[in-house]
Amino acid sequence: MDNQRIGILGSGMVSRTMANDLAKKFNVTVFDINEHNLALAKEKDATITTIKADLSNYNNYSTWLADFDLVITAVPGFMGYKTLEAVINAGKNVADISFFEEDVMMLNDLAKQKQVTVITDIGVAPGMSNLIAGYYSTQMSIENFEFYVGGLPKNPQPPFYYKAPFSPIDVIEEYTRPARFKENGTIVTYPPLSGRRQMEFSPLGTLEAFNTDGLRSLLYTLNIPNMKEQTLRYNGHIELVSQLINAGFLSDKKLSSGITYNQVTCEMLFNNWQYQPNEPDVTIMQVICSNASKKVVYSMYDEFDETNGQSSMSRTTGFTCTAAANLILSNQFQKKGVFPPELLGQNHDCFEFIIDYLSQRNVNWIKEEYALS
Amino acid sequence: MDNQRIGILGSGMVSRTMANDLAKKFNVTVFDINEHNLALAKEKDATITTIKADLSNYNNYSTWLADFDLVITAVPGFMGYKTLEAVINAGKNVADISFFEEDVMMLNDLAKQKQVTVITDIGVAPGMSNLIAGYYSTQMSIENFEFYVGGLPKNPQPPFYYKAPFSPIDVIEEYTRPARFKENGTIVTYPPLSGRRQMEFSPLGTLEAFNTDGLRSLLYTLNIPNMKEQTLRYNGHIELVSQLINAGFLSDKKLSSGITYNQVTCEMLFNNWQYQPNEPDVTIMQVICSNASKKVVYSMYDEFDETNGQSSMSRTTGFTCTAAANLILSNQFQKKGVFPPELLGQNHDCFEFIIDYLSQRNVNWIKEEYALS
Repeated sequence: MDNQRIGILGSGMVSRTMANDLAKKFNVTVFDINEHNLALAKEKDATITTIKADLSNYNNYSTWLADFDLVITAVPGFMGYKTLEAVINAGKNVADISFFEEDVMMLNDLAKQKQVTVITDIGVAPGMSNLIAGYYSTQMSIENFEFYVGGLPKNPQPPFYYKAPFSPIDVIEEYTRPARFKENGTIVTYPPLSGRRQMEFSPLGTLEAFNTDGLRSLLYTLNIPNMKEQTLRYNGHIELVSQLINAGFLSDKKLSSGITYNQVTCEMLFNNWQYQPNEPDVTIMQVICSNASKKVVYSMYDEFDETNGQSSMSRTTGFTCTAAANLILSNQFQKKGVFPPELLGQNHDCFEFIIDYLSQRNVNWIKEEYALS
Repeated sequence: MDNQRIGILGSGMVSRTMANDLAKKFNVTVFDINEHNLALAKEKDATITTIKADLSNYNNYSTWLADFDLVITAVPGFMGYKTLEAVINAGKNVADISFFEEDVMMLNDLAKQKQVTVITDIGVAPGMSNLIAGYYSTQMSIENFEFYVGGLPKNPQPPFYYKAPFSPIDVIEEYTRPARFKENGTIVTYPPLSGRRQMEFSPLGTLEAFNTDGLRSLLYTLNIPNMKEQTLRYNGHIELVSQLINAGFLSDKKLSSGITYNQVTCEMLFNNWQYQPNEPDVTIMQVICSNASKKVVYSMYDEFDETNGQSSMSRTTGFTCTAAANLILSNQFQKKGVFPPELLGQNHDCFEFIIDYLSQRNVNWIKEEYALS
């Protein structure tokens, strides 16, 4: 046991998996406004302290967080930026997976001034994709960087062949936002749901890949001329979603009651897409760095952990974040400022530590390397 | 010009086409609560009299209808039975296309007592399908009676490849109601949207046929052992509707606002399925009577009448009804009581009159007869 103290802001599914992981070594406290979520966190490990708190009271952070050596932020995206800012203002090191829309680098000066280490977007995608890009950007001249990722139900059912571990509104947002890629050094924007194609991914078989806007910081940090993200779904899902979009069901148009089409459709999708308790999910991901002479492929496939009742989504996202938390707490990464994962991955020891940390938790990243003629 | 007077109850699209047709020969008055619809009726032919009336005031019918020689009822289905009952009580002959759910034969005694002729369900389907079945039931021993019918947009667009000349709620009702067929003399019930198959129909090409509940009175009147109706749609339509049903979008489940999924979905479909002004529709239908030695096929294909701005739906339905109105007014059909079209069709002169009447209006029923080995 280490006597260092970690505060986790948010007690959702990923937070609880992280708390459970970290509590084996550290003193862990979880904050949330939702008592049910807090109870679930404590249920897994009685050593976890839970505190009911309205995390939008940003002025309280310096009091709440005074005793912690590191803070993990895992709050809903809409409050992610303000939460991170408040944690930095409280002078605490942070590993963040709130995945907010604002430009996190706007907090870089504040983090340096407060002398804290902030690792952001440190999940699976974003997260592992960035780490691998960062690591190989120091090993080879990457011409093409591409990755494919899907969080899917293990047993897909018609008509959607999909379940969402979060609100359908957030999923639909991903389906209706243009995708920014990099081509020949320039940012290029593709329409939502474009680039659809069938691809084989072992062990799931044929999946449908389509363009999504997941490069985030990578668009600006690394000098890789060609980069793209595609999201993976079972066949049939994107076709049906496209038809709903085409039919206007996901538009901002208003019903006579004043509610938007998008709102009622997402509400109708909610139950349909909701995982049942202990319903197994899987995560599949492939990250490829290549140039004319070399191609490196990292592949990961993970399933719901039945023994611990932990979704694959929470394992692949959460353990990447807790690995980073360990790096900060053990002083293996001591730089001050805000660091998206690609900057962390440029440190070889840090990269190897994370891959190893995940592997110890049975999230296995398999590397293949090919010499190209 | 004939000096007989016809009252038309309802001034919807089909009513207006009927008023226009009948006003060339008769004195026509149209009743409706909707002033816009009444204005549209008068716009086409200034000799048409329009009367604003709340047709649910059934006690007023004897006053309103006193001067008419015949009444046509074309009101929304939910008020169809009461409307027809009130017209019979007022002692008037009727041709009816309100297509209500109640059993019309419950009005048979009243009609006989009042000494009036009531021809009901006298549109295209129901209507022409019944007429043909009735006619051939006197010409041959029909073993199998089947018909295929679709009212479709001439220029189908994704994702639904469909437009509805009436509310999506009524269309969805057709997609969610079990289909009653007759097999070996017994009534057999199939699930909604069952029996899907691809079929070729000139000139539209491949359409998808599926079971629908359109036999109505035919289930009880004619002694034909095997009977079925299938509705026709362009490919893609039923697949998407099935997926919506499968996803629960057309269920009675309630949103947090208290509105049902079905209601909001139909409201969202409304604009998507609504015909634009002068957007062309088509009607396609095939009716087959057969036994071991003979097969008779009646086919009809009709399009939107651009010159007169009359939808094909209103032409094929309305002219069948106005033909029947002519039969009553000219005393060619004088029986007293309630008659579904198959009973009218058993009168050869009446059947030939209707086929001829439609043909004069360019709704062409093509007959083919095959000897089977």
